[in-house]
Amino acid sequence: MPKIVDHDKQRRIVAEAALRVIRQSGLERATVRRIAEEAGLSVGSMRHYFSTQEELFSFCMSLFVERVEERLENFQCEGPLLHDLKELLLQFLPVDQERTLEMEVWFSFSAKTLVYPELRKLSASVQDGLHKASRFVLDELAASKLAKPGLDVELETEKLYALIDGLAVHGILQRDRLAPERVEVIVEQHLRTLCADV
Amino acid sequence: MPKIVDHDKQRRIVAEAALRVIRQSGLERATVRRIAEEAGLSVGSMRHYFSTQEELFSFCMSLFVERVEERLENFQCEGPLLHDLKELLLQFLPVDQERTLEMEVWFSFSAKTLVYPELRKLSASVQDGLHKASRFVLDELAASKLAKPGLDVELETEKLYALIDGLAVHGILQRDRLAPERVEVIVEQHLRTLCADV
Repeated sequence: MPKIVDHDKQRRIVAEAALRVIRQSGLERATVRRIAEEAGLSVGSMRHYFSTQEELFSFCMSLFVERVEERLENFQCEGPLLHDLKELLLQFLPVDQERTLEMEVWFSFSAKTLVYPELRKLSASVQDGLHKASRFVLDELAASKLAKPGLDVELETEKLYALIDGLAVHGILQRDRLAPERVEVIVEQHLRTLCADV
Repeated sequence: MPKIVDHDKQRRIVAEAALRVIRQSGLERATVRRIAEEAGLSVGSMRHYFSTQEELFSFCMSLFVERVEERLENFQCEGPLLHDLKELLLQFLPVDQERTLEMEVWFSFSAKTLVYPELRKLSASVQDGLHKASRFVLDELAASKLAKPGLDVELETEKLYALIDGLAVHGILQRDRLAPERVEVIVEQHLRTLCADV
């Protein structure tokens, strides 16, 4: 009987190995050889899972999208709306080790998209998640009548989106200066500024 | 009589060539050979100007810092304070070709600092300029009594800093979606939210 290898599971193992290599050595040094080594596979067998490096990177990015979507789906509304919305936005910020790693790799990918436009659509799909979440926050505030009267939802979505990504970039590049607790305080304060004074 | 070469001028020419190569091909492909070619120099003569690639990149980053400082020094207060402060912040946003190129290269450098911590202090000096400018904006608003009473200057500085960098990242990665005019509207609106209602 032939050995049955779970193709999809194996692809994931390779992708997880790739993410570790990218984080340690940078995207340009994440060669097939190094990724194979990290995944405990032969270089030859890598071709069964990914035929090009771009396909592999594309799969890595889709893992991020999946993880973020999973977190959003499992997201429990537990308390007051403002608390829940803050927790939702923290899903996109480097407040723990897993999210920090994701964002560091996302950052490397994004820098790469400036040179390789074919990667741009992958990066865009990750970005799209945060844009949707920002819009969701604004819509929820409006629906619950917490929002300030006359709030420009389009503009505030764009602004929230930029604020969260800016905090993410500072959180990973200047983590000694901008601690996760501080990030949380800023997000909380920003949400309050969107609400009508009580 | 020996040919007199203006060393500093030549270093600048090399650095400008390096920036063009980085922008076109990415940081990891900006080899000494390609930069020499772009600068119209021999590979051998490059050593007269920069002994290591890191030294060259470091010089490129310092050119950015210099340019930003120059722009800030030449910055003319021309109109109402809010207008001037907005113009100041736009110095850090990809609203024209020169600033877009700078920010794209800055972004590549920053991604690189995650893997090469020795580059981090260069990236930090560029970042520091925007942090100072953000602080300046808040201080000016407070001094002119335009600021909302009870504004948390530390927090608002951090927030403005993140917002501007987030807009910069979106402006370069998603330039089709986020036009410079839109960026300007958001900055203007944000400044108004920092002011007391009149």
